[in-house]
Formats: sequence, structure tokens, C-alpha cells
Amino acid sequence: MTALVRSWVETANDPDGAFPLNNLPFGVFSNGDAPRCAVAIGDRVLDLAALQSAGLLPDHGFDEPALNTFMAKGKAVWGEVRDALTDLLREGNETGAVRAALHAMDAATMHLPFRVAEYTDFYAGRQHAFNVGSLFRDPANALPPNWLHIPIGYNGRASTVVVSGTAFHRPRGQTKAPDADRPSFGPCRRLDIELEMGAVVGTPSEMGRPVTVDEADDMIFGYVLLNDWSARDIQAWEYQPLGPFQAKAFATTIGAWVVTKAALEPFRRPTPPRERELLPYIRDTGPMLYDIDLAVSIAPEGGPATEICRTNYDTLYYSAPQQLAHHASSGCAMRTGDLLGSGTISGPEKGMFGSLLEMTWGGKEAITLEGGETRTFVEDGDTLGLHGHAQGDGYRIGFGPCTGTLLPARDAGA
Amino acid sequence: MTALVRSWVETANDPDGAFPLNNLPFGVFSNGDAPRCAVAIGDRVLDLAALQSAGLLPDHGFDEPALNTFMAKGKAVWGEVRDALTDLLREGNETGAVRAALHAMDAATMHLPFRVAEYTDFYAGRQHAFNVGSLFRDPANALPPNWLHIPIGYNGRASTVVVSGTAFHRPRGQTKAPDADRPSFGPCRRLDIELEMGAVVGTPSEMGRPVTVDEADDMIFGYVLLNDWSARDIQAWEYQPLGPFQAKAFATTIGAWVVTKAALEPFRRPTPPRERELLPYIRDTGPMLYDIDLAVSIAPEGGPATEICRTNYDTLYYSAPQQLAHHASSGCAMRTGDLLGSGTISGPEKGMFGSLLEMTWGGKEAITLEGGETRTFVEDGDTLGLHGHAQGDGYRIGFGPCTGTLLPARDAGA
Repeated sequence: MTALVRSWVETANDPDGAFPLNNLPFGVFSNGDAPRCAVAIGDRVLDLAALQSAGLLPDHGFDEPALNTFMAKGKAVWGEVRDALTDLLREGNETGAVRAALHAMDAATMHLPFRVAEYTDFYAGRQHAFNVGSLFRDPANALPPNWLHIPIGYNGRASTVVVSGTAFHRPRGQTKAPDADRPSFGPCRRLDIELEMGAVVGTPSEMGRPVTVDEADDMIFGYVLLNDWSARDIQAWEYQPLGPFQAKAFATTIGAWVVTKAALEPFRRPTPPRERELLPYIRDTGPMLYDIDLAVSIAPEGGPATEICRTNYDTLYYSAPQQLAHHASSGCAMRTGDLLGSGTISGPEKGMFGSLLEMTWGGKEAITLEGGETRTFVEDGDTLGLHGHAQGDGYRIGFGPCTGTLLPARDAGA
Repeated sequence: MTALVRSWVETANDPDGAFPLNNLPFGVFSNGDAPRCAVAIGDRVLDLAALQSAGLLPDHGFDEPALNTFMAKGKAVWGEVRDALTDLLREGNETGAVRAALHAMDAATMHLPFRVAEYTDFYAGRQHAFNVGSLFRDPANALPPNWLHIPIGYNGRASTVVVSGTAFHRPRGQTKAPDADRPSFGPCRRLDIELEMGAVVGTPSEMGRPVTVDEADDMIFGYVLLNDWSARDIQAWEYQPLGPFQAKAFATTIGAWVVTKAALEPFRRPTPPRERELLPYIRDTGPMLYDIDLAVSIAPEGGPATEICRTNYDTLYYSAPQQLAHHASSGCAMRTGDLLGSGTISGPEKGMFGSLLEMTWGGKEAITLEGGETRTFVEDGDTLGLHGHAQGDGYRIGFGPCTGTLLPARDAGA
């Protein structure tokens, strides 16, 4: 495993920090002026627009308020920029020009790192699919018959993907109690989270041209933490026969920092053994999951955060390149900025489940928080946080926070 | 009913023509140079970028290769531009400047009229939902229990929405025969069409802010013909539990001309009587369907076209504003360029069904074409056409063609 690469930015050498020189995740920040591209280094944000304008980086659109131009350029350019930044920030290479482009991270405002072209949410966690199948459908046939053959996914809504730290209102919607004669419309009563990773598509593919799993891996720019907020009561009433719609359309939170594939390279892990052989177009060609420790925390308004889940990204059954290859298999064009949610990441045991639906087994078994309060689903004022890092030898590749706060439902005529 | 408004462009006064002065649909064209915005008038395309640059229209981004800038400006601006164009083109008002901006339609290349932000496909045809429920699921409980309460919809894929006239390859995908032990991957064998209308969102709505049915009606810029090509064998295997995905992701064809709400105003029709009272947030507030005659034709390569369906847009159970109000009900942000497919429009009798799945009852009853060939599903080389117009008093509001040709599946490793 690669060791820490030391930087002259001292805080980047903290073995417990999220952003050593080995990481260099990309994002978009501002500090009172126009949003522009950046990387994180230690407790600093490095302004790439400033480096570009000083001639220290080529023009890859770093002065734009989104990473899309850079992401579209492909893996050779991504590698060149990573090498150039590593060189500029390496211990012993300090210069005034680079130092002048550093800003305190805690004073920076982070924005959505890229324009989300389209958002697709998958369902690649076997334990999650089994749990949800048991709760929503039939425990005896919990796993759908296609699940071991297809990386099941559905198109989500891109317009409400928001960056970490964004608060939003509890959604309203149609629900129907099992014994009710008709549905009613009102605030969601079973608001849930889903712990996911998002794969971010960098280079596009043409309509009518499927891609291989290896090509798909090359198209992916990086990964973010992703919370696919879900209104379970709305979902239960609406999702048959055409899938989740308004239950998943009100907010999806992603982390502000896109961790590149290059930073994750030492942490590649294979998918688990195949129970049924996959069809050739999505067959594994190498390790394409990653060893990423993941956790979920919940904090009531003004109260302490309680960790309620701990699991690992490597428990998924399908990797993001397999999902992307399936996504393009019909000839569907994939675009720069497409965001692919992994599906909820639930490990095999209860403390490893990535949604409240599973943790509380459909709301029947409340969990107790550190302050003594209990929860079955998210309550107004709660802040949910996803946390993730890959553990290297003396350094960590962190994803930065992915948090969201639930505000009360707005007063609105129904 | 409004009468024909006569134009000095003589072909616009043909009572059987699609594009009288009453219509003025918007599109994007080129003729060897850069794509720009236009309206159709008679057998001509009127270059709005030229009028804008001559100072005959205000700057609403008509020199851009998409209508999005104009569509975002809202109904007051849409009305001003329509009034100005009506004045410029009215009989007696001919000027050299406007004449110079006219181009022969048959020499113009038409482009996608707007950048599709996101594509949502609904399921608002009661006969279609009943037919498909009977074929895919249980004839005794064909209509899902939520159907009379929710305008059921799912997110589709925007990246493969193409303009009329675009040929595309037969998709490949996973299918599984009922008696097979495992799925296989290969060219779709049951390629279908869906006759739909698309509603085009002009003005956006904010995240967290639901809209009323009346506000939704005001947000809609206009309507296009829409063919939601569907791979039925892929769909049958993949769609449970999260909905259609690759079966609908390879191509969706829309007409090149967006017919405005203003042009359709005289043809408003109510939805049919409600079987169950709708919840207030999507209740009808006025007639929001339209009396639009629709037809589908199929032409084998080199052969004549046969009309295989004739129906009307006013047979739908939910209007586009009801769908849009439901879409935003959770707080989902709606955006300029969002495209809302109506769902397949199938009238109550067999000659009125809007998909081959229904016309041939699951492929069991072939239809015979004029040249004597038979069809259950679309074959390589076939050109499918959707046709639509509203019949006024001595004029027609036409939608222009919405055609697509199926090419053979590409040779590709599976």
C-alpha cells in the first residue's frame, strides 16, 4: 500500500486528516466571490482558477463554477493535473504563488461540484435488496428473480441533487394506510436516508454505442458520498408498477468533494463471489470496488451526534463500472456529469444497515440516541451525516462530510 | 372556434396545411450554417435569429441552438413574441426584411428544438394501463390500485431524446424466456412504439415549492408529438421492482416543432369524469386536455405507409398540468426544458390503441400492412410515424412529422 506523500502544507500530513497529498479531491468553492474549481489539501482549499490564471496549470475550465469541462477531458488530462498538483504541493516545493492560492477551508463556501446531467440510482447491495424485499414484499422471495443477473437501477431526478450542508423541507405526498379506503395528502411520516456512494461520469459515450466494463471504469472521474433521502410511506403507495418517483425526488445530498479514482487506486477490492455467472457484457474484469469505511450519524437539533451504522463499500454485489456498462448496454448515451448512486450499502449485520427502514425493521424497533431520544425515522431538525474514508499506511483518503438537515414541512394548501 | 388568420405567406392559408398563422410552432433549424430558432409558417421556416438581429424582435436568445432561453422567459414574453410574429406575417403586412428571413422548409435541417433537461414519462391513458396490466400482470386486477389517485410516472432518460427523422439501431439487452433457466443478452425481439404527446416545461419551479394545477398550466410552453420506443422483452425481465430502465433508454423521438399553448387554446377539452374524486392538489380546475386527432403509420423499407392507429389526445385520464403539479408535489424542482410524456394514448377500441403490444395483443395477433406484409413488432428498416393536428374552422394546427427508422442491431460483442 502506498505511503503518505508529504506536503509543505503541514496539516496535510496529519495521519487522521481527510485530505493528504495522496487524496487531492476536486470541488467547487467560493469565499464571497464567484464559485470556481478547487482541490482540498489539509485544512486548506487550493484555488485552481488562480493557478490556471498564473499559468501554473493549463486551461481546463477551472474558472467555471462546475468541474464538467475538466471532467470531460478524460483520464490522461486528469492524470496530468494530478501530477502537476502533487508536484506543486510536495514537501520542499513551496512557492509564494501556490501559497497565495490557498484558502482556509472553514471559511470557504462549498457548492455542488459538478452540474448533474442525469441521476441514476442503483440497487446493488444484496443485503439491502433482501431486507427491503422482505419488508415491502414477500420475505420468502425477497430477492427479485432478476437481481443476480442485472445491476437493477432506475432513473432518478437530477434537479434536486444538493451539496452537503443543504437543509430542506420535509416533503408532502400521497400515502394510503393499508386499511384506508382512499389515500390522503400530507407531510411524509416515514422519512428515511440511504447510505450510498455516487460514481461521477467524466467522459461521455455515444448513443448507440455500448461500453465494456473496462471502458466504463475509464469513464468514471471519481466518487462522492451520497444520501438518497427517501419518503417510505409515499414510496410504498406510488412505486408499483413503474418504480419510485416523488418518494425520491425531493432531495439527494452529495459530498462537496469528488475523490478521484487515482486517489482510490490502492484500495481496489473485488466484488464478492458470483452466485450465478454474470453475462459477459457485465462480467468482472478486475477489482472495481474499493475498501472504504463508511458510517452514518444522526444528531437531533442542538444534540450530540450518534453513530447508527458502520459498514464498507466493498460489500456491494455490483461495482460502478458494471452498473455503467449495463446502463449503456441498450445504446443509452452517457454524459459528463451523470451521477450513478450505488444503491444502499448495508452490511450483513444489523449495525451495518444503511437505512433507517432496515435499522428499525420497518419502524418497529426504535433506535436509542446518545441523548436518550429514540428514532424510527428522521424527525424535524435532525442532521444526518455520512462519513467515509479509505485507510492507507499512515494516511487517510477522506470524502469530507455529507450532511443534510431536515426542516419542518412548509405550510401549504393540500 | 377561431377562424383562419390569413397570412401573406400564401401556403399558410391552405386549409389542410399544418402551419397556418394561427399555429406558429417553434423549432430549431439550420441550412448549412449554425442552428438557430425559428417558427414554421406554411411551407417556410422563419428565421427568428435574423428577425432579432434586424431589430424586429427583442433579444430572447433566438440565435442560440435551442429554445431554452426563450422558454424560460414565461408566458408574458411568449405572448408578446406571438403577437409580434402574427403582426409581421399577417396578410397585407409583407416586408422585404421578413421575406428575407424565410427559408424553404424542405431544404432546412431540423434539430432538437430544446435542450431536454430531464425526461419524465407518465402513464395517464386508462385504456393503455388496463391493456398493459392485463398483458404483463393480472387481467382480473389490471388497473393498479393507485392508478385512479396518482398520475403515475417515472423518470426516463433525457440523453437519448432525438428529433424526428433520426434513425437508430435496434437495442440489445437482457431477456429471459419464461421457461429458460437463465437470461441471455442480444438484440431486442419485441421492439415497440408508444404514441404520446410531450409537454414542454418553460418556466421553472423552485426546490421545495409545490405548484398548483393552474400554475403548472402556466409553466408549460407547448406540446410535441412523442414516440417512446420500448423494448418489450427487455422491459418484461428488468422492470420489477424499480420500473423500466434500459427498455426505454435507447431512443425517444419528438417532433421538431413545439406547438404553443396559445395555438391550442381553442381546442381545450376536459378530462373524462372522475371515477374516484381526486385529492385537491391535482383536482381539475378547467379543461386542460386538447382535441387533437392522432394517428400512427408504419412503412417497411421502400414500401408504402399503413395507418395502424387513430385516436385523440382527449382520451387521457390526467392532463399535463395535473401531471406537472404531481411531479412538483414533493418539492421536486422543475426546470426549463423538462419533457413530460403523457403516457401511451390508446382509445377504447382496437383501432385506437397506441402501441403494437396492444394492437397485436402481446404479439399474438399480427396486423397486415398495405403491401401485404404482416407485423407484430417493429422490424429492421421500418419507419414509424406519429401524426397529429387540431381541426379548426378552415385551418389546422399541425404538429409536423414525428418519424423514426429502425436500423439493424450493431455487430457488438455481447
